[in-house]
Amino acid sequence: MSTATPLKIAVAGLGTVGGGTVQLLHDHAALLAERAGRPLALVAAAALEKPAGLPLDGVAFHRDARTMAGEADYDVLVELIGGADGIALDIVRTALERGKSVVTANKAMIAHHGVALATLAEVKGGAIGFEASVGGGIPIIKSLREGLAGNRVGKVMGILNGTCNYILTTMRSQGRDFADVLAEAQTLGYAEADPTFDIDGIDTAHKLAILAALAFSMPVDIGAVQAEGIRHVSALDIQYADELGYRIKLLGVASLSEAGVETRVYPAMVPLSFPLAHVDGVFNAIVTEGDFVGRTVLEGRGAGARPTASAVVSDLMDLARGRSLPTFGVKVAALAPRPQAPAGAHRSAFYIRLMVRDEPGVFADIAAALRDEQVSMEQVIQRGRAPSETVPVVMTVHETDEAAMLRAVERLTRLSSVAEPPRLIRIEAL
Amino acid sequence: MSTATPLKIAVAGLGTVGGGTVQLLHDHAALLAERAGRPLALVAAAALEKPAGLPLDGVAFHRDARTMAGEADYDVLVELIGGADGIALDIVRTALERGKSVVTANKAMIAHHGVALATLAEVKGGAIGFEASVGGGIPIIKSLREGLAGNRVGKVMGILNGTCNYILTTMRSQGRDFADVLAEAQTLGYAEADPTFDIDGIDTAHKLAILAALAFSMPVDIGAVQAEGIRHVSALDIQYADELGYRIKLLGVASLSEAGVETRVYPAMVPLSFPLAHVDGVFNAIVTEGDFVGRTVLEGRGAGARPTASAVVSDLMDLARGRSLPTFGVKVAALAPRPQAPAGAHRSAFYIRLMVRDEPGVFADIAAALRDEQVSMEQVIQRGRAPSETVPVVMTVHETDEAAMLRAVERLTRLSSVAEPPRLIRIEAL
Repeated sequence: MSTATPLKIAVAGLGTVGGGTVQLLHDHAALLAERAGRPLALVAAAALEKPAGLPLDGVAFHRDARTMAGEADYDVLVELIGGADGIALDIVRTALERGKSVVTANKAMIAHHGVALATLAEVKGGAIGFEASVGGGIPIIKSLREGLAGNRVGKVMGILNGTCNYILTTMRSQGRDFADVLAEAQTLGYAEADPTFDIDGIDTAHKLAILAALAFSMPVDIGAVQAEGIRHVSALDIQYADELGYRIKLLGVASLSEAGVETRVYPAMVPLSFPLAHVDGVFNAIVTEGDFVGRTVLEGRGAGARPTASAVVSDLMDLARGRSLPTFGVKVAALAPRPQAPAGAHRSAFYIRLMVRDEPGVFADIAAALRDEQVSMEQVIQRGRAPSETVPVVMTVHETDEAAMLRAVERLTRLSSVAEPPRLIRIEAL
Repeated sequence: MSTATPLKIAVAGLGTVGGGTVQLLHDHAALLAERAGRPLALVAAAALEKPAGLPLDGVAFHRDARTMAGEADYDVLVELIGGADGIALDIVRTALERGKSVVTANKAMIAHHGVALATLAEVKGGAIGFEASVGGGIPIIKSLREGLAGNRVGKVMGILNGTCNYILTTMRSQGRDFADVLAEAQTLGYAEADPTFDIDGIDTAHKLAILAALAFSMPVDIGAVQAEGIRHVSALDIQYADELGYRIKLLGVASLSEAGVETRVYPAMVPLSFPLAHVDGVFNAIVTEGDFVGRTVLEGRGAGARPTASAVVSDLMDLARGRSLPTFGVKVAALAPRPQAPAGAHRSAFYIRLMVRDEPGVFADIAAALRDEQVSMEQVIQRGRAPSETVPVVMTVHETDEAAMLRAVERLTRLSSVAEPPRLIRIEAL
């Protein structure tokens, strides 16, 4: 074993994930060598400061990741700096230009520059591994690119952001409000000081764009993803969801039909009978619908040093074992741009919460607004009476065109008895 | 694309899975060729009778699978005949002897002859794919061998038999008895005329032996698996499980600790908070605990023509893409035999149902029997009174050594007020 040529690894970035990766390569060196048939040798690492406590003996340390990427002798550059552009993109380009391979956890970079980087890799003979960019330790990239390679995939959807899932889970279990739980999550380090990327669904959008590219063999198209976050999810809606037999989850949903591709991120109600309803806290899960395999669900830790390191190392193991594939499963030239499905054509069931003044005739007005747009009511909850005060009225409606639903909401908004803009949440049924 | 050398495939067995595989290779020929970079060409097929309705134009048809295996010109033999020995084993050996690769859905054969076949493949230069042997369309073999290759796995467990899961799910949802639901499942084709393999846990044992070999890098050892099936699961126990917040599932559980390896199949109670509790009907799911990745769960259809064909073709795609690995992830010489954990050392919480004559002093006797073996009671349910008639008493006990629990059960059995042998079910907690 020890005589086999090692895979020479250079790691850029020694933060959470970088540290975890260095630790894994150290702790499991013998195991990895046995499984790969050759050692995985960490030869160089770059960070602004050399962190204490990491097993970096004998590893060339660089303060400048660009110098390392351009000059060090390695087979694979592991990029764990992050950010769509800047240093991360520079060093990845440098490595690929040199004909080296790249392993990265950087979803923003792959979402924004995936096709350009895949093209560069293809021309220069390197490979790009990005298992760690989606779903933390869950082997979802491998499953889509290899395990389900016999299928035409029509839908891929999931809980892709642990911060949002933690917030929604805590709001539900403790009956607390969004702002309150977010502040606590920031204190605990589960949410960033600037939480925008997570809670506005941008992180989920990056991951979804990557999944859609793999699932539908199309160029990554982050610009096409419509993202709505969880800022407007209220404790009240979570409570009603519970009562109606649903959980509210931030989902990324990509589907391909004859009408085209849809890639959207939104908080949705999922029925308790659906596996995603039970994915709580920092766990992520991805559901895939393939035409032969049917539904598969993959669940696991979506972030953290050790799970993400597990994904990084799975890519390294593939490279060490001499296994590499085109970045998105097919050659770049075979990635087919797909038309966007027309806006409003999406069909879904919905939950609607109105805050209405409790006065005679309100229900008749609401029912008429829905009827006029051919939206068909399923359930209504109104509890307690408070004459001439504002009370919540909650409804679910059967599957309908989103355009019709939005027109009905416009009608509802104009009713004099409706006190604030209606709250609309999609019901994700399968 | 069309000028690339095709991967030449010979399929032996054209039953459910064989038919699904032929159909997939036909329906997705262009897609597969694009993804693999070369065509996947079905060149030969063998079955006792040529089935109508399958796209077999231009495919050399053989009535004798042995002749096909020994003489046809192919790169991969796909063995879908089944059975641990007999024709299946003969043709797989023949193909490997010829230096060809093999793809199979045959869990019995891999469980019984895995190491011998892996050795033959290694010597002759072929590869063995068996993704379809466990969990139908779920890419669990790939996940263990590649996606989680950076981890030391301590536990792998799952719902591995769709027939049993269908029966248990139906017993619960319809409140019916085992025999009744089994008879119906046989009529519907969900259970075999001779259901022994499924309901006595033998099929689950085969699959578990394979998972354990992969997870712990050890030789497959079907002889070490202790299997108990679902014949004795009663509607009454399912009802009590519900009441206590559990589901009863037939699990295969493999764990590796300092004490050794345990591979066991048994019906267990799983708490609703655990993902396996919500895996219903014909779905399968596998939970893996890796030291870096933590817990992952993979769920999907565990059987059927199309899901299983999806798994078969994922192995074919790997071969077409020039990717192959040692059968169990490491060379045969590196598979380390592991000691069995000593019997009775297993620790677990338990559910116990006693049928007792409702007479004074019964509870005191039961409590004393448990106390004398240091088994600590958690909950007790006894509802309704029927003086001097037989009534169920249900208890759960805290985690304890299995040996102590069995001694306590022996004491309980000897009590004059206990009318039939106590029913003991493990509680699988994580």
